[in-house]
Amino acid sequence: MVKSFEVADPIDSSLEGFALVNPSITLIPAEKILFRKTEKSQIALISGGGSGHEPTHAGFIGDGMLSAAVCGDIFASPSTKQILNAIRLVSENSKGVLLIVKNYTGDVLHFGLAAERARAQGIDCHVFVVGDDVAVGRAKGGMVGRRALAGTVLVHKIAGAFAKGYSEKYGLQGTIDAATIINDNLVTIGSSLEHCKVPGRKYETSLKGSQLELGMGIHNEPGVQILEPIPSTEELISKYMLPALLDSSDSDRYFVNFDEGDDVVLLVNNLGGVSNFIISSIVSIVNKALKSEYNIVPVQSISGTLMTAFNGNGFSITLLNATKATKALNSKFPEIKSVLDLLNYNTTAPGWAVVSHNSKPAVNEDILKVDVKVKNAGTYDFETFSNWMKAAAKAIKEAEPHITSLDTQVGDGDCGYTLVAGTEGITDDLDKISKKSLSEATAQISDIIESSMGGTSGGLYSILLSAFSNGIIQTCGENTPVTAKEVAKSLDFALSTLYKYTKARVGSSTMIDALEPFIEEFKKSQDFKKAVAAAAKGAESTGNVEAKFGRASYVGDSSSVEDPGAVGLVAFLKGIESTF
Amino acid sequence: MVKSFEVADPIDSSLEGFALVNPSITLIPAEKILFRKTEKSQIALISGGGSGHEPTHAGFIGDGMLSAAVCGDIFASPSTKQILNAIRLVSENSKGVLLIVKNYTGDVLHFGLAAERARAQGIDCHVFVVGDDVAVGRAKGGMVGRRALAGTVLVHKIAGAFAKGYSEKYGLQGTIDAATIINDNLVTIGSSLEHCKVPGRKYETSLKGSQLELGMGIHNEPGVQILEPIPSTEELISKYMLPALLDSSDSDRYFVNFDEGDDVVLLVNNLGGVSNFIISSIVSIVNKALKSEYNIVPVQSISGTLMTAFNGNGFSITLLNATKATKALNSKFPEIKSVLDLLNYNTTAPGWAVVSHNSKPAVNEDILKVDVKVKNAGTYDFETFSNWMKAAAKAIKEAEPHITSLDTQVGDGDCGYTLVAGTEGITDDLDKISKKSLSEATAQISDIIESSMGGTSGGLYSILLSAFSNGIIQTCGENTPVTAKEVAKSLDFALSTLYKYTKARVGSSTMIDALEPFIEEFKKSQDFKKAVAAAAKGAESTGNVEAKFGRASYVGDSSSVEDPGAVGLVAFLKGIESTF
Repeated sequence: MVKSFEVADPIDSSLEGFALVNPSITLIPAEKILFRKTEKSQIALISGGGSGHEPTHAGFIGDGMLSAAVCGDIFASPSTKQILNAIRLVSENSKGVLLIVKNYTGDVLHFGLAAERARAQGIDCHVFVVGDDVAVGRAKGGMVGRRALAGTVLVHKIAGAFAKGYSEKYGLQGTIDAATIINDNLVTIGSSLEHCKVPGRKYETSLKGSQLELGMGIHNEPGVQILEPIPSTEELISKYMLPALLDSSDSDRYFVNFDEGDDVVLLVNNLGGVSNFIISSIVSIVNKALKSEYNIVPVQSISGTLMTAFNGNGFSITLLNATKATKALNSKFPEIKSVLDLLNYNTTAPGWAVVSHNSKPAVNEDILKVDVKVKNAGTYDFETFSNWMKAAAKAIKEAEPHITSLDTQVGDGDCGYTLVAGTEGITDDLDKISKKSLSEATAQISDIIESSMGGTSGGLYSILLSAFSNGIIQTCGENTPVTAKEVAKSLDFALSTLYKYTKARVGSSTMIDALEPFIEEFKKSQDFKKAVAAAAKGAESTGNVEAKFGRASYVGDSSSVEDPGAVGLVAFLKGIESTF
Repeated sequence: MVKSFEVADPIDSSLEGFALVNPSITLIPAEKILFRKTEKSQIALISGGGSGHEPTHAGFIGDGMLSAAVCGDIFASPSTKQILNAIRLVSENSKGVLLIVKNYTGDVLHFGLAAERARAQGIDCHVFVVGDDVAVGRAKGGMVGRRALAGTVLVHKIAGAFAKGYSEKYGLQGTIDAATIINDNLVTIGSSLEHCKVPGRKYETSLKGSQLELGMGIHNEPGVQILEPIPSTEELISKYMLPALLDSSDSDRYFVNFDEGDDVVLLVNNLGGVSNFIISSIVSIVNKALKSEYNIVPVQSISGTLMTAFNGNGFSITLLNATKATKALNSKFPEIKSVLDLLNYNTTAPGWAVVSHNSKPAVNEDILKVDVKVKNAGTYDFETFSNWMKAAAKAIKEAEPHITSLDTQVGDGDCGYTLVAGTEGITDDLDKISKKSLSEATAQISDIIESSMGGTSGGLYSILLSAFSNGIIQTCGENTPVTAKEVAKSLDFALSTLYKYTKARVGSSTMIDALEPFIEEFKKSQDFKKAVAAAAKGAESTGNVEAKFGRASYVGDSSSVEDPGAVGLVAFLKGIESTF
């Protein structure tokens, strides 16, 4: 079942919404025309057709692309009157008008008639019909020719740039020639998992859940072939889509010659309902297949949601032969050195994503190779420290069954194992940590427990230790022996740092209920035993509170259960205490 | 059933594809970092998090927005190591780093830890956590706070513009303050028709076909409420979504004050699977509801696919209190006159659509009011012409049953009725056509038959007549009496014009098989009777050809059937001939 948002007045509201988002574009609601100001000296481009393909065409209104779009009802051509009005409006501020339409009978006839009428009124205008789809081959397409797909947008872009940059010199005929050259070098093929759902209409499809249609048109027109079962996307591209575009032995479908060494521009277009994530994957897959199977490396890859079939669950691949297009353009217009210059000409059209071609930054690989490395600060006795860690690990190991039992009542049961993994991670790697400075040792332990513990509690302890290391750096010089005073200051700094990343506080029934009293007492008395006692008291208090942070659903049946994280911290501290 | 394209190596290929499309952005595959060059004098912004929300975050890398994005696996935070490497890379070319993350535990902890480590390495950096979702109210959200939705992108955009324009002066703290001010004035609520499909995972959902979930998160987290049956989009917005954002009596969810007269910025975000067409409709519906129910007129409306849940079938509404944000910004940074200046600051980020704020063109209403009006050329005898049209209409009426019978064999059966409608349309309106000039009369008839006939044949005849009118203008002065010579020239011009819009030619079994011989003979002999005979011969020939244009499926069972369109044209011409 295809579910969709339904609105009462889709066409009018969609046009209004587009105009609201694009304040420089004027909507004439009665005529369903959207237009902008064009410079008088240039040829203006108009496009249009049925609605349902957004951002095609109104999204391509902008400096360097279209001057206006004329919108029909859903999948239906606008009327001659609408189109003629658009021509008349735009021709006021231009020296000629090129209408670019997709090759669908209704559009061709209505735009054609409007152009004839405009010409009879003395307006210099012409209709250019785009056809880029190879799904309908020469035999079946007959004299109607190829349907139009996303390649149309490349014609808008490149003819738009030509009109902006060169039509003052070369006029309407030059602009027509440029559009013709682009279309002559364009091929597109689509693939869809489903027919698109049309707003306000019942969903109808002949495609089963296990089928994919190769070559489906943007109005659900039949394609080349139904594939069942659905191939992997890699196979779909390599075995079906690229051959439809590039197999020179298929005389029915081979519309554009691609010779060895020709540069190509690749466009992967989202028909509306594919994720951006997967569209990017498809760009990569197509690039790889072009390289391995055709020895083609695209000089530019473009992707986007440019021509849709509402939220159609499909995509298309377009190839433009940039070498042949450049050669043809350059022979007519010597100033044009590459079709890529036109393709990448600035535009303000909202539907065309800006792509910056500034130079890529190089990667300084050294930066990526550095281990945890902090300033050495605070000397310490490594043997004593090692004994603390071993004793703490032993205490945690012994406490694990109790902690696990608590956590199965209030959490997901892994708290005890996580603490064991963390403390054993430390003892396993004791020989690797710095004997020289406490700042580096604690930074290294922060790193160790991030990997060995993982999860939220690993992250929190890791932050605490990293900040503690930072505190030592702030309070000690390289050769300062660390005393309780510096530890107290660094613990205080570590706790306030931790509080930037968790909103848990005393009373939230977390390990903070033990940690904060421990640190506060240690700051005050610098007496470890007193501080551990404060931590234990705090842990006990978690068994007496009603509100349990993040565990609202357990309140009632677990209000007398101590927080396993707090209990674990106390076990750890008591382990250290046992060595005194 | 939710169908989706599956790829073998989704994360790596998606990152590669993104980098291919964006040549100025460098990908470090092993670290899943994307980054660009930043100017040394400014604070650089980094974002990141789990994949699946594209273009968030890498799509917002660009001048005036982010300097880097760190990508995790699907819906999972990147590791501290990845993030730390990104900080180190970016800090080489900046004077400090602000990490902007969405409020999800894993992201907050990993980015937090990386920031602490970077700080220990002497890098000035800070983590800013965005939370804009009102779905989880204060009671349920507890100390975790609001989740992050599309409002995050506004924080990227505005903090990015601040960093570009003002961070050289105000430093990291100023950039943090700017981000804080934006987040404090942001509210967002989403609605989804379906849980999103995660590539590579089995689709799991608890939502039925008749249900919509208000407030679903971008990782399919539970929302506020399940609505069943699915309300109209208008009702969903007015009754559920806007009250969640704006109901000041809902102390659990009213996170931002909106006072009467406050300017707001509206963002409608596509979660990935809604059509652009409907997203624009939603912009319009939200604008209307804000105005009618809250007396709020957004100063700017933004829409786009900015933060997705793959191709999630849902959208969100974000409101930014621009008045309060401007006031707070201005009091700290007197140069900043409006938050809109930051919002609309230039960026090269590919995921942020360019919106031009140039002035809208005014509509010259006169242009839209003009009827078919062409230059007067060629005088003619109106009475004779009227008699021709009446006789032709009569002949068509008589021939209709035969034409219909032919068309039921080779077409969709409406050819006869269409021709009757066209010719009667002309005779009905004879009193309205110009008696003064044949150019205007034929232009008017072109207009009449476009409406009365409709369809493809109406379009083709309409073009033929419009071009004929144009031919008369080219061959006759205002007072030139039209003779057979001018008619012949104009018919020739009309036919070559028609050939621009149809690829049918003689032999295609269409009305062209009668039309072209008629015009060719008339050009040669200027003898109407001879020309009609040539047309009749041409029409007969359509019964003898194998290939039928556009009707390949009928070849065989209809090869002896004459083309109804050609037969109709001959009947029309014979009708005229009968008056001689």
